[in-house]
Amino acid sequence: MIQTMSTLFLRTLRQDPADAEFPSHKLLVRAGYIRRAAPGVYSWLPLGLAVVQKIETIVREEMNAIGAQEVRFPVLLPREPYEATGRWTEYGDNLFRLKDRRDADMLLGPTHEEMFTLLVKDMCSSYKDLPLNLYQIQTKMRDEARPRAGLIRGREFIMKDAYTFDMDLAGLQAQYAAIRQAYQNVFDRLGFHYVIVKAFAGAMGGSVSEEFQAISPNGEDTFAYTEGGYAANIEAVVTPAPPMVDATDAPPCHVEPTPDAGTIDGLVDCANQTLPRADRAWAATDMLKSLVVMVKQLDGTRTPLVIGLPGDREVDEKRLEAALSPAEPQPFVEEDFAAYPALVKGFIGPVKNGAQWLGETGVSQIRYVVDPRVVAGTQWVSGANEPGYHTFGLVAGRDFIWDSVLDVAEVRDGDPAPDGSGPLKLARGIEIGHIFQLGYKYSNALDLKVLDANGKLTTVIMGSYGLGISRAVAAVAEDTYDDLGLCWPRAIAPYDVQIVVAGKDDALLKAATTLAGELDAVGLSVLLDDRLVSPGIKFADAELLGMPTIVVVGRGLADGQIEIRDRRSGSARSVPIGDAADEVLAEIA
Amino acid sequence: MIQTMSTLFLRTLRQDPADAEFPSHKLLVRAGYIRRAAPGVYSWLPLGLAVVQKIETIVREEMNAIGAQEVRFPVLLPREPYEATGRWTEYGDNLFRLKDRRDADMLLGPTHEEMFTLLVKDMCSSYKDLPLNLYQIQTKMRDEARPRAGLIRGREFIMKDAYTFDMDLAGLQAQYAAIRQAYQNVFDRLGFHYVIVKAFAGAMGGSVSEEFQAISPNGEDTFAYTEGGYAANIEAVVTPAPPMVDATDAPPCHVEPTPDAGTIDGLVDCANQTLPRADRAWAATDMLKSLVVMVKQLDGTRTPLVIGLPGDREVDEKRLEAALSPAEPQPFVEEDFAAYPALVKGFIGPVKNGAQWLGETGVSQIRYVVDPRVVAGTQWVSGANEPGYHTFGLVAGRDFIWDSVLDVAEVRDGDPAPDGSGPLKLARGIEIGHIFQLGYKYSNALDLKVLDANGKLTTVIMGSYGLGISRAVAAVAEDTYDDLGLCWPRAIAPYDVQIVVAGKDDALLKAATTLAGELDAVGLSVLLDDRLVSPGIKFADAELLGMPTIVVVGRGLADGQIEIRDRRSGSARSVPIGDAADEVLAEIA
Repeated sequence: MIQTMSTLFLRTLRQDPADAEFPSHKLLVRAGYIRRAAPGVYSWLPLGLAVVQKIETIVREEMNAIGAQEVRFPVLLPREPYEATGRWTEYGDNLFRLKDRRDADMLLGPTHEEMFTLLVKDMCSSYKDLPLNLYQIQTKMRDEARPRAGLIRGREFIMKDAYTFDMDLAGLQAQYAAIRQAYQNVFDRLGFHYVIVKAFAGAMGGSVSEEFQAISPNGEDTFAYTEGGYAANIEAVVTPAPPMVDATDAPPCHVEPTPDAGTIDGLVDCANQTLPRADRAWAATDMLKSLVVMVKQLDGTRTPLVIGLPGDREVDEKRLEAALSPAEPQPFVEEDFAAYPALVKGFIGPVKNGAQWLGETGVSQIRYVVDPRVVAGTQWVSGANEPGYHTFGLVAGRDFIWDSVLDVAEVRDGDPAPDGSGPLKLARGIEIGHIFQLGYKYSNALDLKVLDANGKLTTVIMGSYGLGISRAVAAVAEDTYDDLGLCWPRAIAPYDVQIVVAGKDDALLKAATTLAGELDAVGLSVLLDDRLVSPGIKFADAELLGMPTIVVVGRGLADGQIEIRDRRSGSARSVPIGDAADEVLAEIA
Repeated sequence: MIQTMSTLFLRTLRQDPADAEFPSHKLLVRAGYIRRAAPGVYSWLPLGLAVVQKIETIVREEMNAIGAQEVRFPVLLPREPYEATGRWTEYGDNLFRLKDRRDADMLLGPTHEEMFTLLVKDMCSSYKDLPLNLYQIQTKMRDEARPRAGLIRGREFIMKDAYTFDMDLAGLQAQYAAIRQAYQNVFDRLGFHYVIVKAFAGAMGGSVSEEFQAISPNGEDTFAYTEGGYAANIEAVVTPAPPMVDATDAPPCHVEPTPDAGTIDGLVDCANQTLPRADRAWAATDMLKSLVVMVKQLDGTRTPLVIGLPGDREVDEKRLEAALSPAEPQPFVEEDFAAYPALVKGFIGPVKNGAQWLGETGVSQIRYVVDPRVVAGTQWVSGANEPGYHTFGLVAGRDFIWDSVLDVAEVRDGDPAPDGSGPLKLARGIEIGHIFQLGYKYSNALDLKVLDANGKLTTVIMGSYGLGISRAVAAVAEDTYDDLGLCWPRAIAPYDVQIVVAGKDDALLKAATTLAGELDAVGLSVLLDDRLVSPGIKFADAELLGMPTIVVVGRGLADGQIEIRDRRSGSARSVPIGDAADEVLAEIA
């Protein structure tokens, strides 16, 4: 295929779009691959759509190779199935809801577990119909609170979603493993850097789940990994509990005045001044901080929650949101303190006057959870629930108890990995795939059963597998761009070769056109820059557009030479025009 | 590609779905090509999606061949552009509207003229950027009042829509002609019967427009054609006005009692009894019927309209709707008659007591329009606007006038064509394509101008071109099915060949599998029925599914023979197994 630049529907921009922060977003807009249609909603221009279609082809090939079958569901869906699984409500504001002309509730599909489950229920009745691996490549909609970063977090996006159906866990695990490998094949072919991390399943349900994260300093996801092979997204990182401490000889706890100690720093200073330790100075790690949040349930009820964690740690918002989901944490504001006088701002702690104060069985009856580091026998300083007083020498498990452990503190570089594989390192990524062993959540909710070999009705076990096609465009761009512009891997470049006619001499255009024909004949796609603009503009555009091979037909033609440039390395070499097609082909092979 | 039936996600049904009326709908559901997800909303199963994708490929090839460039717009669109062109309102209940989490109005794209216009405005500034021919293949949504016939009138459907942009009418006409030809190429390749008919542009705006109608007795559209080459959909048929009549010698009109003549039949009877003509009997064609409708404007105002037409004609609802659009005709009910006492039910006519009664300049000031057959000099009997009285000998243009001509009477077999090409015949069809010379409606509304060669800002002239991909699946099925089931043209059959293993002997399956491999090797796609069910079930399913070539590996194998059946003709022949691949290939070529 040959496309001339003079007729291509393209306008490159010299300026970055005002709303773009990410390099991929800036470059995809500047290079005329996408255009914004509404917040978080983009149109695909010819070059962008070509990349999408190449990715779609690779995904189809790898999915079909493992026996997956392609189907396509509607975007517009009825409410009932999502009601049955609770997701009509759970999705909250992220779901686009609408009413049709008959006032029936409908939604725009954010993901299709319910519909696939119902279809399989409709079509399958026997173990002989399983295993099944069904997928679709489809436009999906989610009303993101903060659409950003162009294609990375859009409100309308293209996704490949797959669903597996098996008779038992072993079957699910086998299909999960096959799809995991297919995803690796896809991402390897796309040509960018990624890691597979343990993930938090969230509203999807199920237990085992992993994410494919494109490594990017601009990624909005954070993940932790070790040299020893552990990798998990930040929501899924498990903090290993330290060993219990023998506190048999610990002295009793005692309340002390700490008048100016409404913060951890203030408390540390105050303790070091008024109650100095003999062995070392007091530190934030000695303090048991009490953080209060309001937890809003799906039904709208709001209840306070106190989180106890070491004074040197903050709560990680994302980890907290994930842990509480589908309920939602909200700030605990002044009116809330007024409504719950048991919580004395700046001086909250598990114990008051020697009695358990926090916790569902405590005097306050306010739910109390603690960080995994708060193990039995550890000693703490915490608020005494009276303004200006803290309790010192509180022994966990002796002086106070908690309703449960909640692992939502920030994860830091150097924290130990739960599998003992070494200290954690933090990195950022763009989630481009997410695979789930769903289990029975959807098949139970929608009653998907088939007869097993003994004629007994058996609930089907499911998996679901997402791969962001439009997001992959951005992730690859983000991973491969350079100072000059986009820089596509060969597998998904819109064109194999861009030919720059560097000059206005008719002979140049003629030679370039002949060469384009030769390249086309051997199966390469060619973008031929035949425009009547300066060579400088053409070179800049070729670099911005990012085809992997650039051929320059310019002054050298007088000596029978053309130049082949490698976009990524920038290396260039002259070859005789007669050998040009073979040389370009060699470049690509 | 080889797909085994035992693993294909398919369940054929013996019973027609309860909600299906059309053969294509029944068969596509029974053969497991589609499944209903909501009213007018369908899921594509593997076989159905394969047909869709083959049609999409053919459409892309033919569009790309004329230099069209593919893009893709969002489904989810902002309100503003549709507000600017008036279609936010004009579309009425057919538009799916929704609000996002920030309460912004959005819509699901029914067609994308506005978005394409804005994109071209954003990207193009000069005549050098034109002509342009852009298209997309995309999921579209319309909240149809009566979704029906499966894929034929769905609320979510797949459409190829193209848009052209030119500097002048000649450019538009050239692109229109090129796309018209591309559509003919597409439909010829799909292999079904269609006609191109003049169309009524309706809410799209513009003047010249044509429809591609798949000929089908079950089609919901009616069109008229002549042997001489005229063809128009029923809304677009123009009734030629007969020549004016010299009524110089006509006697004056006179009011006569017609006590029981509240209907045309009653009036004819009454006239023949009480005022018999000398030359012939009175007939319905002598009567000027007055039909009253209420016209509801977009702003909600309702005004009466009287339509005068020959007594033997009814108003065609579709023609009336089209002619009044975007206003909407509503029945004129008893309360309306009560509100407009000037209209005496059963006795309405243009004249009362010798004075003009109907019409904006008449006494009643009620708008009055007439059929094109009511030309100056024609004589009529019509209501006298008093119960029990009609006026006889009313001469059009002498005794009464009208506000305008409205061509909305039913069209009948044998009516003359407007171009003199002979009597009209009526037929039914399924609209599978619609092409429009839009003109300046959208470029004016959205201010799309570019600089011409003289540096002068010039408004761009546009065309738009729809092709129903999902509807084409149904139209082809409807055109090609037979008593046994679906019967696909080769170009879009999901598989080239279906191999039926007719027996449980392992040797049969082995030979069939080998043959499938050979066919796959020469590039054919094969559906191999390896299921452990009776040959009868397999044959019935093969006929229902409709692959064009069926190969039977059965008893003949003992003699080294297999059978090749042509699905359409039903003809079968035995060939040696060793020649099978070549023979199948010969069948297909």
